Amino acid sequence: MANSATLSELRARFDEVCRRGLRLDMSRGKPCTEQLGLSDELLFALKSKDDCLTEAGVDIRNYGLPDGVPELRALFAELLGVPENNIIIGGNSSLNMMYDTVCRAILFGTYGNCLPWKDQGKVKFICPVPGYDRHFSICERCGIEMITVPLTGHGPDMDLVDELIRDPSVKGMWCVPKYANPTGETYSEETVRRIATMKPAAPDFRVFWDMAYVIHDLDDTPDELPDIFEMIKDTENKNLVYAFFSTSKITYAGAGIAVMISSTENIMHAKADIAFQTISPDKINQLRHMKYLRTADNVRALMKRHAEILKPKFDTTVRIFRRELADVEGVHWTEPHGGYFISLNVVPHTAKRVAALCKEAGVTLTAAGSTFPYKNDPEDRNLRIAPSYPTVQEVEQAMEILCLCVKLAAAEKAAEI
Amino acid sequence: MANSATLSELRARFDEVCRRGLRLDMSRGKPCTEQLGLSDELLFALKSKDDCLTEAGVDIRNYGLPDGVPELRALFAELLGVPENNIIIGGNSSLNMMYDTVCRAILFGTYGNCLPWKDQGKVKFICPVPGYDRHFSICERCGIEMITVPLTGHGPDMDLVDELIRDPSVKGMWCVPKYANPTGETYSEETVRRIATMKPAAPDFRVFWDMAYVIHDLDDTPDELPDIFEMIKDTENKNLVYAFFSTSKITYAGAGIAVMISSTENIMHAKADIAFQTISPDKINQLRHMKYLRTADNVRALMKRHAEILKPKFDTTVRIFRRELADVEGVHWTEPHGGYFISLNVVPHTAKRVAALCKEAGVTLTAAGSTFPYKNDPEDRNLRIAPSYPTVQEVEQAMEILCLCVKLAAAEKAAEI
Repeated sequence: MANSATLSELRARFDEVCRRGLRLDMSRGKPCTEQLGLSDELLFALKSKDDCLTEAGVDIRNYGLPDGVPELRALFAELLGVPENNIIIGGNSSLNMMYDTVCRAILFGTYGNCLPWKDQGKVKFICPVPGYDRHFSICERCGIEMITVPLTGHGPDMDLVDELIRDPSVKGMWCVPKYANPTGETYSEETVRRIATMKPAAPDFRVFWDMAYVIHDLDDTPDELPDIFEMIKDTENKNLVYAFFSTSKITYAGAGIAVMISSTENIMHAKADIAFQTISPDKINQLRHMKYLRTADNVRALMKRHAEILKPKFDTTVRIFRRELADVEGVHWTEPHGGYFISLNVVPHTAKRVAALCKEAGVTLTAAGSTFPYKNDPEDRNLRIAPSYPTVQEVEQAMEILCLCVKLAAAEKAAEI
Repeated sequence: MANSATLSELRARFDEVCRRGLRLDMSRGKPCTEQLGLSDELLFALKSKDDCLTEAGVDIRNYGLPDGVPELRALFAELLGVPENNIIIGGNSSLNMMYDTVCRAILFGTYGNCLPWKDQGKVKFICPVPGYDRHFSICERCGIEMITVPLTGHGPDMDLVDELIRDPSVKGMWCVPKYANPTGETYSEETVRRIATMKPAAPDFRVFWDMAYVIHDLDDTPDELPDIFEMIKDTENKNLVYAFFSTSKITYAGAGIAVMISSTENIMHAKADIAFQTISPDKINQLRHMKYLRTADNVRALMKRHAEILKPKFDTTVRIFRRELADVEGVHWTEPHGGYFISLNVVPHTAKRVAALCKEAGVTLTAAGSTFPYKNDPEDRNLRIAPSYPTVQEVEQAMEILCLCVKLAAAEKAAEI
């Protein structure tokens, strides 16, 4: 009887919220307008045609420099702590660089004289879950079978990974090693070392290391990501890692600069193929970024200003979760020190229902299931919360509604039994 | 004895030129600095963050609008005479869009439920020659066998094409239908109609229609390219053509906007795949282009200013060829009304020698053979002349040296016999 009372009470509250007719979109990890405004000097960073020369005097308004603006590559090298020659500057999308890297492996093979993946039968990737939907979509489109491995709070379950890589058809693993999308966890020293020293059966196995949030700290106790390139250097795993990074969440989203970082051999191999694809990336945007960002320290200072805008939104989310959900059995969430997401596990088999209820109440969440390959969350419990875009007040409203829906769906579920 | 006298005379003149120590690069079809300067307003086209909104009010500094800035698509539609919905706006490189289109066909197949090309055994492309080296490189990298077909002065030899397309493994044909690279010829009404009504055995045969120079007229008697989309509309060949265009030779080379134009079904099919690859192209550069170019008429006016700069360089080249080479048996060149190139056929089996002699004398040409698949010009006679980048005076110097080398190589050849 207590449950049923709670259920009708929650329903009444839900109906009241629906009548308010709110419209709040929390579906994607988009920077908010205030964050975009931090970089408006970027618009004017090239003040005249005389600004359109690299330090070496190359006119970036013309063809040439397939490797991009050298001084920008140097800036990324400093920022990411890798040698300049291990960086390829791409266009505006690191996702595009990942997709292209997968496609090249399928069509032409990786460095090291292995057959193209298309000629090796079934290809499988390890997908730590919950994870980033667009990584999984690339695999799905390319017919790469995805095998899930749970995240532990400090990276993927490496015992399971070590088991899986004994299969030579397992060719890759997606990783978001710092402030993972959506759990916000950072891989521990031990996890990174185990990845760096893994012994995959496939000689052309590659770790796709998506450093989307490596400098995206929110507070004064940021996570530290161990340097995997330092660990694999001069080992037989030196060609194991393709890493990716972009300024989409530093300057402008979708109009920043994407980069790929890898071993000398992998980079040489990738460049040789990219030469068939394009004459050069857009160097105007590159030089504009160089003139605006100037130094790695400036970039870090800019990230602090992003954090000032984002932190209250994350704090609000966590505060409301703690207040509303602490007592709800089977509900858990992450409280990350950076990145763009909070992962919320609701009562098993209610995530789809929660998202549907939220939608009815005017709050759009990332679709339930999106954080799993094939959009199939076997326990139907994970939701990705993206607090960056709305205002603090909107986040507060949306999270209160979400918590109500979490509890209503839980009560509905309990009533079924 | 006359030949031998000429040879030693030519050698003496050549030695004298070498002593001058010139350095002139005519290897690529690059706009010159003066042309780039025509578009420097583009650098400042977004004057504040308030300029960063589309007409519909979307903030282009953020993710979104996978189809790009709608009003720019409308501008291209007007400029190219095709419906807006038949255009995809890409990044900075039409070559990249061509490469990606080929790769998608290989990996996933074309619209119409055909198998991916990778699962159909040998794939072949028809390559009109001489042609664009980067088209051929894409095929070579992708393992697509290239079959050459001669250009006639008004497009490819269509009798031969009609013969070749009876083979269902022939899946594509490269075309630069207006001011072809390098011959400068434009496909005639009859050629375009024969392409539009061709009957390939392969249901997934596609024409790659590279409209690189379609508005790049040099004089007041420009060529007219018939509208192939008008011809194939509502016919069984409606999905035959993938067309490509970019502003690289309108605004900035390698920092312009690339577009793909095709049928509704092909575009829908391509967009569905591109959605796996990227969130959106760089909309900042798109809106900058929109605010700078504004109307199709403005673009056409800008092209007239390009022509004013380019025409004297083409005129100089042709004048020197007429003066120096008119009497040399077996030597022919094109005199195009637009585009970026002049095609020079030297005495058979001397093109490599001419390029080597030019190099020795300080003039870098596009490598002999480049205009043929596998860099194999079977008669070793074609050279691509790119007069756009150097000054008129440099073009004059370079062409005089080139003509000397053409005659010297011819004389050497004659002396062999």
